[in-house]
Amino acid sequence: MSRFFSSAYRDMQAYVPGEQPRDRRYVKLNTNESPFPPSPAVIAAYDSEKGNVNLYSDPTAKALVEAAAEVYGRESRRLGGGDITPDMVIAGNGSDEILAFCVTAFFRDGGAAFPKVGYGFYPVFCNLFGVPFDEVPMKGEFEVDIAALAASPCNIMIANPNAQTGVYVPLSDIETLLSANKDRLVLVDEAYCDFGGESAVSLLARYDNLIVVTTLSKSRQLAGGRVGLAFARPEITEDLNKIKYSFNPYNLDRAAIAAGAAALLDTEYFDRTRKAVAQERERLKDSLGGLGFVVSPSLANFVLARRDGLSGEELYLALKERGVLVRYLGGDLSDYIRITVGSRAECDALVAAIKKIVKEKNI
Amino acid sequence: MSRFFSSAYRDMQAYVPGEQPRDRRYVKLNTNESPFPPSPAVIAAYDSEKGNVNLYSDPTAKALVEAAAEVYGRESRRLGGGDITPDMVIAGNGSDEILAFCVTAFFRDGGAAFPKVGYGFYPVFCNLFGVPFDEVPMKGEFEVDIAALAASPCNIMIANPNAQTGVYVPLSDIETLLSANKDRLVLVDEAYCDFGGESAVSLLARYDNLIVVTTLSKSRQLAGGRVGLAFARPEITEDLNKIKYSFNPYNLDRAAIAAGAAALLDTEYFDRTRKAVAQERERLKDSLGGLGFVVSPSLANFVLARRDGLSGEELYLALKERGVLVRYLGGDLSDYIRITVGSRAECDALVAAIKKIVKEKNI
Repeated sequence: MSRFFSSAYRDMQAYVPGEQPRDRRYVKLNTNESPFPPSPAVIAAYDSEKGNVNLYSDPTAKALVEAAAEVYGRESRRLGGGDITPDMVIAGNGSDEILAFCVTAFFRDGGAAFPKVGYGFYPVFCNLFGVPFDEVPMKGEFEVDIAALAASPCNIMIANPNAQTGVYVPLSDIETLLSANKDRLVLVDEAYCDFGGESAVSLLARYDNLIVVTTLSKSRQLAGGRVGLAFARPEITEDLNKIKYSFNPYNLDRAAIAAGAAALLDTEYFDRTRKAVAQERERLKDSLGGLGFVVSPSLANFVLARRDGLSGEELYLALKERGVLVRYLGGDLSDYIRITVGSRAECDALVAAIKKIVKEKNI
Repeated sequence: MSRFFSSAYRDMQAYVPGEQPRDRRYVKLNTNESPFPPSPAVIAAYDSEKGNVNLYSDPTAKALVEAAAEVYGRESRRLGGGDITPDMVIAGNGSDEILAFCVTAFFRDGGAAFPKVGYGFYPVFCNLFGVPFDEVPMKGEFEVDIAALAASPCNIMIANPNAQTGVYVPLSDIETLLSANKDRLVLVDEAYCDFGGESAVSLLARYDNLIVVTTLSKSRQLAGGRVGLAFARPEITEDLNKIKYSFNPYNLDRAAIAAGAAALLDTEYFDRTRKAVAQERERLKDSLGGLGFVVSPSLANFVLARRDGLSGEELYLALKERGVLVRYLGGDLSDYIRITVGSRAECDALVAAIKKIVKEKNI
């Protein structure tokens, strides 16, 4: 730490992202990436932009925003909601940046509440921006306490599905949060929604206190392309744009804008790959259950799992030694590991490694 | 504005980036882009990354940081300074993001001072992060008041060359700012330094209160790739990383990291193109001078120019009508237009249009 660091941050704990090791090749099931390559349309987008990167990107990210409005508008109408117009969309350099803009813009006055088990970044954002926050305890092993959140006086941040357990709450629960107090915002973080959940965008027609955030990192094969989106009423996206234009107007590069639009519009590839991941997830749950694991009823592209007789850290280290990388989260989740749903071969390698570990430990 | 917008931001003025119009093709001399295409090595970098974007980018941006340390270390030693080690470098999603991290990390306690004519984003950042600031008046038409800045009790932000006039102050002036008060930070923004200035990175060996920020947007043909860099002592970059990891850990995408490293390492292309821009700048100065303009003694890839009998806005609008886009900055600079140094053909088109305007107006 330098002697110039602002007093506000001297004790701040930064977020620690999942390992991205380069020392050896792992079966990498720790950061919830897609086991599928990017869509051919995404590759074509890189090819079309690479020669033009001497020119600035479009600060409004028009092509991406319009593609998002089209695709999510279709989803909204399918679920009985209204259109999503381009002025209801804002794009970010990953959903982390969008979340930071939201916390900055809206949560400083009223504070934030979120489930104690969730995306580990929420308290970090709040600390950075000086936002008071309340972590609401879980109701059961994997159950978010919707009633307690609804009763909180604060703005709500909720990952749906949950970012650690993968458990999805139905849209009726989101509505409970929205209608319990219409004078606070409810931010629904749908990073993992495409593997079995339904998007809350359909509720935007009826609630003006809703922000839906998502990312193209997981279900659209763009973790390394950094594209996040938020959907909200136009007056909310106007506020978010004011923050963006005070922070980093050209926040998406040319390739990210074009690749993001291409990934959104290739709905055939999206549907095929997300279905394959969901199927593999169910097979993985069965395999782990058969090996004596308690597995979260996840609808995401990962599961949270624990096994009596083995701590989360022991499992994580034993798997790493065998070339399989999973996420050890520690803290309240020190009994667990979080496992990304990889390809069939990757999941088979994980299960084989676990079988060996269980056998060696004789448990 | 929504009813949820934090009270702190209700009166905030966001930055307005230069126009990126899509209604027609302009001779685009308004946002200081390079008239040269990206280096072939940059194109190759996009090709090598496009198939892997389903995987997260490296949050440490190691390849880019190492390339920057190598290239700027060479420049530092050439100017009599020391090595630049990778722990003295941090990469950002454009230099705007890096500047925002710096203002957040360091300027909240001591405030900031900067020349009144400079990068229009500095006061915007300060407003966003609640940093008090002092705009120091210019000494002459194009001269920054170094003595007044040195006497300020605040941290200093200075674009060198200046972001509106292109005027470069020698490193001895930067040293005056650094040594006048060693308990405050001096941030030197070198976005435009490669077209004739010398980098202050060579001063890092002797001053621990220096941050040098730069971008690959201008001299390395990556405006649409969004890559910025900061150089400072390791304890300063450690603080900046703490802000980054609390805000957006994966702030550079895979293509930006690879393209940035490739652009830095292709020093032959860099030298050839920046020299061509500098030559064209001198030719443009002569042409404008011959047409009765007062032109700033710029060492950047743009000039600031005014002509008696024509306001900046009149000139801007008359040029736009003729298909040439320049930047009208307004405010204190309402007499001027800022003109990017384009290709020879683009500069010729600008000069031809100005000749017609001057003739028509009969001035």
